Parts: sequence; structure tokens; C-alpha cells
Amino acid sequence: MGKNRVTREEDYSKWYNDLVVDADLAENSGVRGCMVIKPYGYAIWEKIQAELDRMFKETGHQNAYFPLFVPKSLFEAEEKNAEGFAKECAVVTHYRLQNDPDRPGKLRVDPEAKLEEELIVRPTSEAIIWSTYKGWIQSYRDLPLLINQWANVVRWEMRTRLFLRTAEFLWQEGHTAHATKKEAIAEAELMNNVYATFVENFMAIPVIQGLKTESERFAGADETYCIEALMQDGKALQAGTSHFLGQNFAKAFDVKFANKEGGQEYVWATSWGVSTRLMGALIMTHSDDQGLVLPPKLAPYQVVIVPIFKNEEQLDQITEVVNNVVKDLRAAGVSVKYDNRDTMRPGAKFAQYELQGVPLRIAIGARDLENGTVELARRDTLTKETTELEGIATKVKNLLEDIQSSLHSRALAYRDSHITEVNDFEEFKEVLEVKGGFLSAHWDGTAETEDKIKDLTKATIRCIPLDNKKEAGSCVFTGKPSTQRVLFAKAY
Amino acid sequence: MGKNRVTREEDYSKWYNDLVVDADLAENSGVRGCMVIKPYGYAIWEKIQAELDRMFKETGHQNAYFPLFVPKSLFEAEEKNAEGFAKECAVVTHYRLQNDPDRPGKLRVDPEAKLEEELIVRPTSEAIIWSTYKGWIQSYRDLPLLINQWANVVRWEMRTRLFLRTAEFLWQEGHTAHATKKEAIAEAELMNNVYATFVENFMAIPVIQGLKTESERFAGADETYCIEALMQDGKALQAGTSHFLGQNFAKAFDVKFANKEGGQEYVWATSWGVSTRLMGALIMTHSDDQGLVLPPKLAPYQVVIVPIFKNEEQLDQITEVVNNVVKDLRAAGVSVKYDNRDTMRPGAKFAQYELQGVPLRIAIGARDLENGTVELARRDTLTKETTELEGIATKVKNLLEDIQSSLHSRALAYRDSHITEVNDFEEFKEVLEVKGGFLSAHWDGTAETEDKIKDLTKATIRCIPLDNKKEAGSCVFTGKPSTQRVLFAKAY
Repeated sequence: MGKNRVTREEDYSKWYNDLVVDADLAENSGVRGCMVIKPYGYAIWEKIQAELDRMFKETGHQNAYFPLFVPKSLFEAEEKNAEGFAKECAVVTHYRLQNDPDRPGKLRVDPEAKLEEELIVRPTSEAIIWSTYKGWIQSYRDLPLLINQWANVVRWEMRTRLFLRTAEFLWQEGHTAHATKKEAIAEAELMNNVYATFVENFMAIPVIQGLKTESERFAGADETYCIEALMQDGKALQAGTSHFLGQNFAKAFDVKFANKEGGQEYVWATSWGVSTRLMGALIMTHSDDQGLVLPPKLAPYQVVIVPIFKNEEQLDQITEVVNNVVKDLRAAGVSVKYDNRDTMRPGAKFAQYELQGVPLRIAIGARDLENGTVELARRDTLTKETTELEGIATKVKNLLEDIQSSLHSRALAYRDSHITEVNDFEEFKEVLEVKGGFLSAHWDGTAETEDKIKDLTKATIRCIPLDNKKEAGSCVFTGKPSTQRVLFAKAY
Repeated sequence: MGKNRVTREEDYSKWYNDLVVDADLAENSGVRGCMVIKPYGYAIWEKIQAELDRMFKETGHQNAYFPLFVPKSLFEAEEKNAEGFAKECAVVTHYRLQNDPDRPGKLRVDPEAKLEEELIVRPTSEAIIWSTYKGWIQSYRDLPLLINQWANVVRWEMRTRLFLRTAEFLWQEGHTAHATKKEAIAEAELMNNVYATFVENFMAIPVIQGLKTESERFAGADETYCIEALMQDGKALQAGTSHFLGQNFAKAFDVKFANKEGGQEYVWATSWGVSTRLMGALIMTHSDDQGLVLPPKLAPYQVVIVPIFKNEEQLDQITEVVNNVVKDLRAAGVSVKYDNRDTMRPGAKFAQYELQGVPLRIAIGARDLENGTVELARRDTLTKETTELEGIATKVKNLLEDIQSSLHSRALAYRDSHITEVNDFEEFKEVLEVKGGFLSAHWDGTAETEDKIKDLTKATIRCIPLDNKKEAGSCVFTGKPSTQRVLFAKAY
């Protein structure tokens, strides 16, 4: 199997697409730009969801559900937000089909069933949610309102790629309302932190927390916090964003509250989201030319056990031993699959699980039974060892922890070695082309310079890191004075 | 609070709507026919989801996700299914908005951005899924394919009611593919059983398992299994359906598999679903004139503890005791909320939790501290007792079990006393009007008779019970011979 796969070196983009399809994660559907998330891919997404949902609830948030459709008049109420999404909106205009008189057995849109007001399929839900919050918020006692929604959204992108950019995607969107600016900013920062913690600890992906520049901000936000990751091809990927929305939506939808003194004030807002795009980040951070590599915390099963047998009698003997191993592993909290199919050879199974990124593989044959051993193979390092059956559960548990942290260390080393300080524009262009990664450079703070650099190099400012140190310098492009470096990169 | 509520007797429909809104379960949105599911309502839905998801996985199903949109050409491929849903389809025709030259700051649909082929917002996903399965199924080795999806769907209903009938609703839809007819029928029956088990054990709602008549079948199904419940106003509610789809979708989308002998055969299919409609069934089965009544297994919190205090010192003393009670209850697997807000009086809290159906309320005041007692109130019976603090966790746990089974027994007694055998049409009409409930009557087996009865009485055949006994008789309407009774009712 490995033999026919395109390598990252040969064609990174094809490597990625082939991997998503071959590892049974997702595929393109019959609907332009929309994907089908296959069971193996969806099982990973479920693990992402479960842990994030736990973290959201732990930080005081509740889930709710708001409509898929946004009437156009609500959609356009917050002008910047509307303008930002207008060009990629799927619009429902009719509510009925009828038999097509010209094509028996076929249907056409019933021209009589035109909606009085068009409905936008939500590209994000600030508008519908803030029009609802108006009815929920009267007094400071109703605040803060801390709500999250798991939903599908649609953005009509012209160039789509599985997980990374699809017309429909799954995500969560938090929408909170606060009495003060300070509290709203603290919430936006808290949730960006939750994202960073999750992505680092569960996905083993190192991220840089930062602020977006004005040009890169969410449409309708006063400030956008983000977490930025670096892929193996040297391109950055925005893995999550958390927005301080000021009073923009409260003003657009007239959401005021009575403060303790009895005065009326506009409510302060945040919103924050991560999506199935995280799947793309996961795949591109850890995988290799042999296929997917999964951090144990997100693997649908962490261990697969493959019996090597010549006949049914041998299989029975092996299964007897394996049943105990499975029991011990499950008791230790390890998820395990025993693949005793007799329709597939061990070698083909090995290849499949390698391609699908199962963290550990245990093979056990007749000789192992005699010796009281098993063969243990790590997916991340592709190394194998023969080890004692005795104490295998403890060994596996330790190995899984080691794999989880090794993946993070490896990705961190790559990321850190791909943050390059550059001090003039020639160097900027050369490092960008030859080495890639993040370029740490001085910038004069204008959108104009940002645009020009983007036009010339395709690099954008990914973020102004939150832990940035102040440092006097001159803009890498205009030479004008600057107080800090920012991170540029080409990005997904 | 109770005082101003409309009673079931006075206006059942208004009682229901008020309850849904006042208990903070859901509300109508700014989008015609679409609801907002509020956090308290959504928390119940999450419990429904979690348990069903567990049951689906236990029976070998995996989750996946398919596109929201169905291109019209795929939608119309299975003609009966398309015809069944054509009249209630939301249709996306455009993919972009633009500035409206006549209204500065406002948007209009960009006439240049018309889709070549219209997209139907899925009312159900057989079409998009079977067009996908075509690529997944080649051989008998690929079968069975056992997949479920949690998703939102849209059916453009003209008359909507919160949870019971909304333009958009949340549901799960299972879609399975099998090598044989027998296996597909067994799957449809299995999943109808899973639904019945869940609804009886978790929701405490008694259901009758049955088959739909041809007129009431799912569009595109060869057989529809269902579970039917009875509401307190004597109307039936279809709580879940499971369809044997024959080879209809396999033929429409040309999905064949190579059998063991190498021949090509069409695949056999099932689909099955339950939706947020279950929330309506839950509310209408158990609630009373004081508000919601929740079975403990679905209550977002099973116990609420309300301190009765005159000053902060008393509150501190009570809290010290309560903290231990909370710890004990959680250790016993009971979910509990301690409401120590000082902005609301105990009486108002009592009213709120009564309205929201919290199964057990514990009140504890200064005198209780002296006596080592608490006041324990059951929501289902509205009874109170003073009980020892000692051993409260065990007592609560037992009471919760008792409430769960009492609710079921009460609903079962009501349901069973509302199945009436009727033998002529005058009796049919009278019982239907005066008593309501299920009418067990002979029917001549024709759609014509079914239609006429529906026109005259609004009663439909809810199902032919699976455990029906054969019994010769004559049709309640035409007098023609019949071999078994079926269940008629007015229905939601």
C-alpha cells in the first residue's frame, strides 16, 4: 500500500487529499464543495467534540440550538458582519417543488412558492442569536449569558478542500453576553485559552496564541484572538478564533440591559468557534508518507491486536490469550480492537492500521504463545519490538502516554525551528520561499503595507503573539518605525 | 405562578405552548416555523441523544455525516420519496448576496449568482446517502453497512408547533444497507425495538409497536414500523419510525453488490429516525397544570436543594451541611443543583423548579439544622415530607427510581384505559369525541375506507399492533370482512 502513495515531498497537496480519502476519513460528495465525513473520520470528530464540550461546560457554558436560517433583514442588520459574509451565502428563495410538466417524473421549483423574504443559510449565527438575545436580556441579572451551539454552517467557498475549506462544515460557536467590556474581553481570552489547551493537550499540536490585525479580524469584531498552528509544508493554519465583538451586535439588534443603578446600557459580546477544520490540522501536523498518525487521545481505537495464525486451532489458542489482554487493556482505560477477520491477511491488516494511524499495534502468533511474548509496533516511530506478555497493559498505557507527548515534542521542535526572524524584505521573500514557516518581522502597523506584502508574497500576518516582547525596529517592507515583531506566513 | 397558568382542561393546546415557553424549553424564533431550543430544553435533548447514541453503538452502528444539501437531480431519483416531500422543501437557488443599489447598506440576492442546479435542504437523507453508498458498496464484504447521522432537517410545514412540528428540527437518521431482505427486515425491527425500549425505560412513556398502513407509510418505504404513544388529551403521537425500504433506493441509485457466488444484486435498505418531537411527547405525557414533570433519567438535574435562611450566618451554616449532602448525592450518581441565590425568595425558587419539573426538591432551614432533618418534595405527586438528614442519599436514590417507575405506571394506566374496542361507526364517533384515545376497530384493509374515516372523523389508523391477535370481524365502517382490529386515533 505504502508503495503507491504520493509522498509529502513529491506533492504535499495530493498527499493530503489522498490520505483523507484512503484513511477513510472523508470524501467529496455529489454536492459541490460539501464533504461526507466517513465513520472513521467522524469518530475522531466525536472525540474532539466530547472533550471540548466538557471544557465548555466546566467553564460555565450551556448548549442551545438556534435556527439554520437567517432572514435577510436580520442578516444585514450588523453591516460589517453582513458585508464580510455576503459573497458566500447560500440563499433559500422557495419552499416547494412541483411536478415538472415538461419532464414526467421530474420536479421543478414551484414559481408560486417564492418566499416573501429570502433566508440565508447561516454562515455564522451572531445575527440570529443576537436577535434572540434581545428577548432574553432585560437586566444585569440576566448576564452573563454563556451559550454554545454545535451546528452546521455554510459558506459558499469557490475553492474547497476536504476538512480545510468546505462549503458546509460542522463547528461549535459560542455566543456570550456580558455587562461590561472588561468581562467580555476576559471571556474572549478565556475561550482562546481553552482552545489552546485543548489543541496542545489533546491534539498534540503546538499553537501560538495571538491577536489578528484589523484586516484579518472576524467581520463585526473589535478584536480577534486566535490560535495558529504550523503544518509540515511550512504553511500556517488558523485552528480557532475567539472574538471580542464590543457592542456591535447589541447596537445592531438593540439589546440593552438595566444596570444596577437602573440605567440602560448596551450589552457586550463575544463569539468563538472551532470547526471540522481541526481535522485538517490534525492530519497535516502528525501524518507521514505511510499515512495517518493519530495522537492516542483522539484515536478511535488506540491499540489494534492482529492474530497471526495458520489454522482455526491456532486462532482459538491466540484468541484465548488475546481476550485476557483486551480485558486488561480496557480495565486500564485503553480502547482496543481485536481484528480476527479471516478474510484478510495480517500484512494487509498491518498496512490498513498504519494508514489509519492506530497508535499501537500488537501482533501475536504461535511462537509468541510459546514464548509468552507479543510484537509491539509504534505508529509514530514505525519501530517494532518483541516484549513480554506479562504486564502488557501497563506497558501499553505508558507507551500511549509517550506517543502523545512525543508527537507534541516533534511538532513543537518543527514549529520552533520554523520561526525565523527576518530583517529586510529580500530575506523575507527568500526565507518564505526556501524555508517557509513563520517569519517574525517588524511591520509598520498599516493595512496598506500588510496588503502589499500579501500581494507580493501571498504571506499574511497570522497574528501578533500575545506574549510578544516590545522591541524597537523598522518595518521589513517600508522601513518605518515599529514597536514589535509580528508573525507572517503563507496560510491555509 | 401556578395561579395564572391555563389548565389542560381549559385549553390543552395553550397549556402546552405556555409550558414549553415558561419552563424555558424552547421558543419561536424570528424565522417562520423554526424554534430556538433553550439551554434547559437542550439539556434534556442531550440526555436523549447520549442514551440513544449509546444504544445505537451497542447494536453495531457508527456515526457519520452527509451533506445538508441534496441536488435536485438526486432528490428526484427515488420518485415516491421525492413526491412525498416535494411540497415541503426549502430550496437554495443562489449562492451570493450583493449590495442593494436602491437601499444603501442593505443587501439583495445577486441575480448573477444563480445555481445551475437547485439544492434542496434535506428533509431526510436517503437520496444523498444512497448516492454515496453507491461508491462504498461493491461486494457482500462491504455489507451490512450500519450508519447513523445526527443532523438537522427541514420540512416546510405550514402549521407549526414547538417541538411537535417545526420547519427545522433536530433528529437522528439511521441508514443501513444489507445483502438480504430478511436481514434488512430484522434491522428495521431491531431499531424499532431499540426505540421502544428507550422511550419506555428512559422517557417513561408507554408505546405500542406496530406497522403503518400503506397510506401512512414513509414515502419510499415498503414497510414502516412505528412506536405510538398516547397524550393526555387523548390524541396519539408517533414517537419514532423504522422503515424497511426494500430495494427502492438501491434501484434508484443503482447500488448493487457482488454476492458470494459472484452475481450482482441490488442492496436492501432500512432507515429509522426519532427527532426533537420526542420532547413534545415527553412534555405532554407527564406534565400537569403546575408545569413540567420530568422522569429522573432525563432531568438535567434530578434534585434541587433550596436553603431557607434569614441572614448570611444561617446561609453559611446551611451551606456547610448541604455541601456534604451534595457530595453524597453525587457519589450516589445523582445530579444535583444547590440554589443558594440571595436574589430570589425560596417560594419563587420552589415555583420555578416545580414549573421546570425537577423530580425532587430538598428544602433546608434553621430548624431543620437543629432537628437533623430536611423537607423533601416530590414533583410527580406534589407531596412533601420531613425526613432525616441521615441516609438522605440512599433515600433520594430510591425515590428517584420510584418516580421513574411511577410516571411510567401512571402513563400506562391512562393509555390502557384509553384503548377502547368499538364495533360500529356510531360508537366509533362517539368514543372518539367523548373519550378519545385509541379505538380498536375492524377495518376492511382498503385505503379508501381509511380515507373516508379520516375525512369524517379526523381519526387515522395509527398502527396495526405487532402483537395483534387475529380475530374475524367486520369493518367498523363498511361492514366488510376483516381479520384483525387496528388502532385508530386522532393524532399529532
